[in-house]
Amino acid sequence: MSSTAVGCLLSPLLPRPSSTVAAAGCNCKSRSIRVRASMSSPPPPVAEFPYLPPAQRELMVEILSMVETGLGPQLLPSTVPSDVLSFQNPSGSAHGAIDIRHGGRDSTVNFILESWLHCQIPTGALNIATLLVFLNSSTDAPHLLMEFMQGSPTSLVLLLDLIPRKDVVLHPDYLDEFYHQTDLDKQRQVLSKLPQVQPYMSSSIYARSLLSPTAIAVDINCGDGKEQTLLEEIIRGKLNMICKEIVQIWLRLCVKTRLSSEVDQDILVKRDSLIKSKAIEIDLEANLPRMFTPKVASRIIREIKEAYKCIDSGN
Amino acid sequence: MSSTAVGCLLSPLLPRPSSTVAAAGCNCKSRSIRVRASMSSPPPPVAEFPYLPPAQRELMVEILSMVETGLGPQLLPSTVPSDVLSFQNPSGSAHGAIDIRHGGRDSTVNFILESWLHCQIPTGALNIATLLVFLNSSTDAPHLLMEFMQGSPTSLVLLLDLIPRKDVVLHPDYLDEFYHQTDLDKQRQVLSKLPQVQPYMSSSIYARSLLSPTAIAVDINCGDGKEQTLLEEIIRGKLNMICKEIVQIWLRLCVKTRLSSEVDQDILVKRDSLIKSKAIEIDLEANLPRMFTPKVASRIIREIKEAYKCIDSGN
Repeated sequence: MSSTAVGCLLSPLLPRPSSTVAAAGCNCKSRSIRVRASMSSPPPPVAEFPYLPPAQRELMVEILSMVETGLGPQLLPSTVPSDVLSFQNPSGSAHGAIDIRHGGRDSTVNFILESWLHCQIPTGALNIATLLVFLNSSTDAPHLLMEFMQGSPTSLVLLLDLIPRKDVVLHPDYLDEFYHQTDLDKQRQVLSKLPQVQPYMSSSIYARSLLSPTAIAVDINCGDGKEQTLLEEIIRGKLNMICKEIVQIWLRLCVKTRLSSEVDQDILVKRDSLIKSKAIEIDLEANLPRMFTPKVASRIIREIKEAYKCIDSGN
Repeated sequence: MSSTAVGCLLSPLLPRPSSTVAAAGCNCKSRSIRVRASMSSPPPPVAEFPYLPPAQRELMVEILSMVETGLGPQLLPSTVPSDVLSFQNPSGSAHGAIDIRHGGRDSTVNFILESWLHCQIPTGALNIATLLVFLNSSTDAPHLLMEFMQGSPTSLVLLLDLIPRKDVVLHPDYLDEFYHQTDLDKQRQVLSKLPQVQPYMSSSIYARSLLSPTAIAVDINCGDGKEQTLLEEIIRGKLNMICKEIVQIWLRLCVKTRLSSEVDQDILVKRDSLIKSKAIEIDLEANLPRMFTPKVASRIIREIKEAYKCIDSGN
C-alpha cells in the first residue's frame, strides 16, 4: 500500500464541514469555520474527508485548522476548477479531492496543497491524505509536509517533516537553526519507541533524499486482528501531540523567517523547482493514471503543474 | 554502545599480519601481503585486529585487501607516528590503532583512514573498526565509509555507504549515476529483510545528513542468549556478500570517475572540508577523551586533523 512517499506531493487533508466535524466529536469546529469565514468562501470538497477513520480525520482537521489560522491572512482564494476540487474514476471505485491556494503579496507562502485520495485495492481500501505547504524564495525556511497513507484499518504510514531548502551538509547552521535548536528529533524519538512503530522508507531514493534527518517517516502497524482500536488510541494520543508540536514549531519559525543576504537565491529557486518536477514525475505521473485512468489523471496533473509553475512571488 | 555514527570518521580495519590471518583461517593472506610488499613496508599495528571476533576480522581483512588492491598504486606510504599507529589509555583498559595514507600525484584519493578502537565498558567491551576513503577534488565521486561498532557478542552496528559529495536533491543526475543505476538499494534491502536487522540511526543529526539514501545503517541484534553463532553466520553469509558487492561498485565507479566541467569545485572542497571538521567535532572530540584520557586523545586528534588538512591534490 505504500506510496512513493513523495506521495508526499499529492494527497489530502482539510477541515471538514461543520456537520461532519460535529458527528466525529471534534472540538475545533469553531476555529475551522472562523478561518474559512474570514476568506469568504465555503469549505471545498477536499474538506469532506468522507473515507478517513475518525481519529485520523479529527487530527487532520485540527492540523489544518492550526495551519490555516497561522497562514490565513497570507492565503489567496482557491482557483482550482471544480473537476479537480473533486474527481473520481469512471467506475466510481476511486475518489479524490484537491485544493491549492497561493500565498498573497508579501507572503512567504508559495502555495498550500491539500488533498485526499481514496481507492479500492484488493486488500480493502487505500486512503492518502496530504498537506503540503511550499514556501517561496523570500525565505529559505523549510517547507511543511504531512501525509497519512493507510492501506488497512490497523496500519498507517505517516510522513511528517520540515523539508530542508538547502544542502544541510554544506550548511550546518541551517541544520542547527531549524532541526537541532527546535529539538525536532525528540518528537521522532517519542514515536519510534512505540512497539508498533517501524521506520518507513519510500521506494524512491529521490523521495528519501528530500527528507530532513529528523523526519518522521514511520509505519505504524497494530497487527492483523482487531487492533483498530489500538491504532486509534495511538493516533489520538502520542501522534496527535507530536503532529501538533511539530506543526507549531514550523509555524513559529518558518513562516516568519526571512532570507539572509548570504543565501544564493538562484540555487534556492532551482532546488525548489527540481523538488516540484521530480515529485510530479515520481509520484503523480507514476501513480495517478493507475488509480483514476489516464484521462482523469492528466486533468489533475495539469492543474498541479500549473500551480507549481506559478510565479514564485519571492518578495 | 552506539557511537555517533560519524563514529564513522574514526576507527579501524586492515589486513592482519600473516600469522593472525592464518590463525583465523582467512584465505586472502597472499593478496594482503602482496599489496603491502609492493609498498615496501611491514603491516602497521592497525592490521593486528586483536579484539575483533573472527567473522568480523576476516571480513575486514578481505575488504581491506580489495580496497588496497584497487588503490594500491595510488597510495603513498604512511607517515603516521608510532604513538598514533598504536596507543592505549594509562590504565590499559582501552587500546587503539590508526593508520592514514594519502593518495599520490594523479590519484583521486585524498586519504585512506583505517582504525580500530577497543575499550572495556560496563556491559563488556566496545569494538569499533573503520575504513574511510576520502577522495580529492579531482573527482566528485562519493567517498567510501565502512564501520563496524560492536558492544556485545550478539549484536553489531554496521555503517556502509558511498557518501555523496553533492547535494543530491539539487543534482538528481548524481543520484542516478552513483546510487540508482548501481542498484545499491538492492543490497540494503536484502540485509533489511533479515529479522535480526533493524535500522540504525546516529544520535547526531549532522552525521545522519552525511549518508546517502541507500546507506546501510543497521543494528543487527541476535538476542541476549547464545546467539553469537547466529551473528557470525550472518556476517559470513549475507553481510560478507553485500559488503563486497558495494565495495566493488565503489572501486569500479568512484576511483576512476573524473570531474565534469560543470562541477563547482569550490563548493566541493568546502563541503568536504565541512564534513571533515564536523566529524572531528562530533565524533572524535566528543568521544576519544572519554575513552583514552584527554592527553592521549589530543595526540590522536592532532594527527587526524593534520591528515584532514593535508592539501587536496585535486589534480
